[in-house]
Amino acid sequence: MNACVLYSGGKDSSIMAVILQKLEYKVELRTVNFGLLPSWKAAAQSAENLGFKHRILEADETILQEGVEIILKDGYPNNGLNHIHQQILQIAAENYPVIADGIRRDDRVPKLDLNKIRSFEDSKDVEYLNLAGFGYKSIDKLSKNLFKLKNELTNINNNSDYEIEIRYLIDQLRGDETASRIFPEHMQSRVIGWREK
Amino acid sequence: MNACVLYSGGKDSSIMAVILQKLEYKVELRTVNFGLLPSWKAAAQSAENLGFKHRILEADETILQEGVEIILKDGYPNNGLNHIHQQILQIAAENYPVIADGIRRDDRVPKLDLNKIRSFEDSKDVEYLNLAGFGYKSIDKLSKNLFKLKNELTNINNNSDYEIEIRYLIDQLRGDETASRIFPEHMQSRVIGWREK
Repeated sequence: MNACVLYSGGKDSSIMAVILQKLEYKVELRTVNFGLLPSWKAAAQSAENLGFKHRILEADETILQEGVEIILKDGYPNNGLNHIHQQILQIAAENYPVIADGIRRDDRVPKLDLNKIRSFEDSKDVEYLNLAGFGYKSIDKLSKNLFKLKNELTNINNNSDYEIEIRYLIDQLRGDETASRIFPEHMQSRVIGWREK
Repeated sequence: MNACVLYSGGKDSSIMAVILQKLEYKVELRTVNFGLLPSWKAAAQSAENLGFKHRILEADETILQEGVEIILKDGYPNNGLNHIHQQILQIAAENYPVIADGIRRDDRVPKLDLNKIRSFEDSKDVEYLNLAGFGYKSIDKLSKNLFKLKNELTNINNNSDYEIEIRYLIDQLRGDETASRIFPEHMQSRVIGWREK
């Protein structure tokens, strides 16, 4: 069965991809892009290094604009990120019977509650899978065991999360420190290939 | 890393075992038994047919008695089953760094909330994993794809869940229809081997 994993090049979505492949799904990795910046490139590189099929999932800029509007109104990213992620799931559901992401047990955002998941699965006749059964300790250990990882400050060249284009759009709209205040600089760990054994 | 999967021979705990084995954990399946009935035998057979290492996890009958006391007081099984499952996790944590079970997204019982999971992991310095990222539709399809399954009315010879010894103890204490009322007869699907491909 074809399964789409919404893919950032990070360890969570990489582990989800590995689990589904080992469970015999035909896995395609898809990285969301709203057309503002080529922020999908880092994820494409991670996917290639792991040997997974990868494609951009082109989404309309209006989804990004709606998310940014919510974020600017709230002053924090959670609801806007959830809005964007839910719209993206709807798009993915048009082409795949199984949609997965790297959301894990401890994640607070993006996050779908049980009712939202059931409603999504039923209305679109799809299955939705994530890493809600796995905590951060397990993900950390697993990713170190499976992958070659690179820890670095996040930027446009190494990060394929929604965050990059959200920051860019906020900068365009505000031209001040708003984006840096809402999304402070942080370290990330990116999958750059399989660990040699 | 050694991982213990609390194992009933059903599709949920079987899929959990398969995922962990494919992620390179050293998996041991453990089936809980309180010493009243040899209800572990069906799970041992499933484990053997799948080629997994399997052992009984012998637990003190007082845990069962406590669970049954709660169930009889409540008139329904949820809190008593949760009590038993939490005690069993504590026992498993004495011997394994990673403890998993087949609890999935839709399960209502046994179930641990996020705070209980974190407290369990931190106090025992273990990792706890389950199938909370997988819904019943995905589990059904996956299990049909991976396993040879047998659907049948549940009984002592084909079911290794807590339920069997709980029913037995309730029957001993009450000698009436209480056990059948709290645990109505139901169909179950048991893993009897790998699906031939």
